[in-house]
Amino acid sequence: MKKINIFNKESNSPSLEASSRREFFKKTAVYSAGALSAASVISPVSAKADDPAIMNEAPWGQKLGDPVDKNLYGMPSPYEHNNIRRTHPIFSSGDYYASVAMCPIHESEGIITPNGLFFVRDHGGTAHIDPKEWRLMIHGKVKKEIVLTLEDLQRYPSETRIYFMECPANGAPEWRGPQFNNLQFMKGLMSAAAWTGVMLKTILEDVGLDKDAVWMLAEGSDNASNPRTIPVEKALDDVMVVWAQNGEALRAEQGYPVRLIVPGWEGNLNTKWLRRLEFSDKPWHSKEETSKYTMLQKSGKAIRYFWVNEVNSVITSPCPEKPWTHLKKGDMVEIEGIAWSGHGTITGVDISLDGGNNWKKASLKGLVLPKSWTRFSYVIKWDGKPLLLASRATDDFGNIQPTIDEETSAVGVESVYHRNAIVTWEINKKGECNNVQIRKHNKKA
Amino acid sequence: MKKINIFNKESNSPSLEASSRREFFKKTAVYSAGALSAASVISPVSAKADDPAIMNEAPWGQKLGDPVDKNLYGMPSPYEHNNIRRTHPIFSSGDYYASVAMCPIHESEGIITPNGLFFVRDHGGTAHIDPKEWRLMIHGKVKKEIVLTLEDLQRYPSETRIYFMECPANGAPEWRGPQFNNLQFMKGLMSAAAWTGVMLKTILEDVGLDKDAVWMLAEGSDNASNPRTIPVEKALDDVMVVWAQNGEALRAEQGYPVRLIVPGWEGNLNTKWLRRLEFSDKPWHSKEETSKYTMLQKSGKAIRYFWVNEVNSVITSPCPEKPWTHLKKGDMVEIEGIAWSGHGTITGVDISLDGGNNWKKASLKGLVLPKSWTRFSYVIKWDGKPLLLASRATDDFGNIQPTIDEETSAVGVESVYHRNAIVTWEINKKGECNNVQIRKHNKKA
Repeated sequence: MKKINIFNKESNSPSLEASSRREFFKKTAVYSAGALSAASVISPVSAKADDPAIMNEAPWGQKLGDPVDKNLYGMPSPYEHNNIRRTHPIFSSGDYYASVAMCPIHESEGIITPNGLFFVRDHGGTAHIDPKEWRLMIHGKVKKEIVLTLEDLQRYPSETRIYFMECPANGAPEWRGPQFNNLQFMKGLMSAAAWTGVMLKTILEDVGLDKDAVWMLAEGSDNASNPRTIPVEKALDDVMVVWAQNGEALRAEQGYPVRLIVPGWEGNLNTKWLRRLEFSDKPWHSKEETSKYTMLQKSGKAIRYFWVNEVNSVITSPCPEKPWTHLKKGDMVEIEGIAWSGHGTITGVDISLDGGNNWKKASLKGLVLPKSWTRFSYVIKWDGKPLLLASRATDDFGNIQPTIDEETSAVGVESVYHRNAIVTWEINKKGECNNVQIRKHNKKA
Repeated sequence: MKKINIFNKESNSPSLEASSRREFFKKTAVYSAGALSAASVISPVSAKADDPAIMNEAPWGQKLGDPVDKNLYGMPSPYEHNNIRRTHPIFSSGDYYASVAMCPIHESEGIITPNGLFFVRDHGGTAHIDPKEWRLMIHGKVKKEIVLTLEDLQRYPSETRIYFMECPANGAPEWRGPQFNNLQFMKGLMSAAAWTGVMLKTILEDVGLDKDAVWMLAEGSDNASNPRTIPVEKALDDVMVVWAQNGEALRAEQGYPVRLIVPGWEGNLNTKWLRRLEFSDKPWHSKEETSKYTMLQKSGKAIRYFWVNEVNSVITSPCPEKPWTHLKKGDMVEIEGIAWSGHGTITGVDISLDGGNNWKKASLKGLVLPKSWTRFSYVIKWDGKPLLLASRATDDFGNIQPTIDEETSAVGVESVYHRNAIVTWEINKKGECNNVQIRKHNKKA
């Protein structure tokens, strides 16, 4: 029989009798610092016991703080003013209307990105849509063509799923030689979130597809409209029509009120400000899949309909923005990073300290979910000597990240898309962290 | 042997040949609307095919949108201005310095709350701390007393975990009769987030505890300091010292730069603006655990050290703010809500349509994690008749939510804390949704 929980209230006073506590002591090795393995002793203490910052009462503790009604929608601490998205002229049309804003992944923690920092890629600027005026038309090779309001859409049973999103141009500056010594500009064209909406499959159960409906066109209602062709196989697999991101409505720059989520596939397929889904027996060959978002190879031919963001990883701590300059010789330190694969689930990440000659297994930590960011960790005792740090991820489809040479020999360097070669950081004696491609290029460090 | 992923690039053109596609067709029932079960046909279409909103080009599509550099830290769409935290005089000291701001859980999706909407409870207002000036002292019955800077703290290996947080006064307005016909004010003293920091156990491995260190004092550096006693058993189990929430630094109102996370236990134990952890063989009996945060029973005696937020649930859709007034008789609709337990993991949620006479099993959807919000779902065809909707959650410790009568008979109505009785919504013929306690009280609806 299940207990009625309320009865627990009567015996919920402290029950930490000496006997049970002694029992508990036996179960843990924590009660003696001497019993610990060396590896677990981090001892990061740099502050002194007579540090004025701890000896004196803090100034912020001597007065009342802000009242709660000051921020009914809260913002970051002013001390975090440096943790922002960033734009760069080489990724923009010059006016920042058709442009990108990179996510500060060097400051990210865990496997979701807060909405204020989620990377942005607009083809014609951020549209602002009155949700009452929003409509979604579903037509073409379907049994029943429909037009949905937002209220209609939200009547379907909803799902919430965590997925990364990545622009295929993430890493583009690395293809034809290094351009940045900075993780945010190198790899910040991606983010991750918990998306809430309807499985497209659920809607298609309602409308019914014709047997020869094998392609779907997704189109936005912004001025760029960004039409893209998606195979129905994918639409029926895990594609979502979403209105919420990380627990609240989508932000305008993410397609408010409704966007498509195409898990693991190129970001530009995840149509923002969605207005139309059409079904056909032929692909559309739209501008964005012929002149753009194709992958030029060394043969001079281009790969079209190249959808999946491939297995990838990068070390985020250290990185050029987060060096080891504060560490002393012999300090323990955690190497941490992000791995992801549009094919499926990350199964492992290897770490090299010597530029890829030797590899060791990192730990995956926290939630490991399909088509999501996965955090990896590797703790070392740094001897103060230079290192060449690299990570190499594998996924459950048997894919493994290539080296730069492997990637270049296969597809050349003419493309700007789908860069997933291993990234290497150089740690020098001072603890500074540099992009190895930069180092090779400049012959300085 | 693992494949080098790069080679996939050469064969990544469309491969949707007729044969494989026919094979795929056999595997899905989606291709004919007629083959579907009635339950899956939601058919929420209210818009007409000649709706001007879909026939005419949208005004926002006729011009460029905002450039990406306009919002380097993004904010919600102006159309979402109503999705905010809210305060109320009955929960404040009058000036909103020592007060609460309720989370709009009726607008929440999934199992995390965006940081801008996370509920706030301050005892002396929101402190603003320069992270360079922040220190954490760990002392008392430890082998080695230490003072940590933020940089020191962040050298420990980090963990990210999703937990709900709840003020024990959540639901307080319901104890001695209903006061709100509004979910946000009834149950909005809770939220949920992904927290990143160090397991306290990891730090205690470094400092080493004395054998008689069975209690820990956690103290903030704000003017209220909010000292609370926590058993070391819990500290060594799952308590975290965190600096990030949902992937970015803690917000000021959540204790920036560092707070304690005590999973599943009363919100006030999750000390914000943390400055001190002291270990002892005796509890402290601080003001906040003697005059406050005790539970007065009908006997006149108070329960002290009542830590765990018990098994609980509430239907969030519909709710008084999200009624069914837009539904027609015979419409399919999803009943959805949140369940949570500070003891562990939600194992099930039952739904009643008749005020608790009959119960049916809801589905749990999305991630089901310990001490986290868990979403439940139950789809019905509404016949347009009045309903009394209720949810009843169970957890993996065998706890089950009590009825109001069971809770009242066990602990009386003198307390304002730990309300976890079943909440019932009345749906009337118009589709309006009311708190049943309000209905009984007013004898109106």
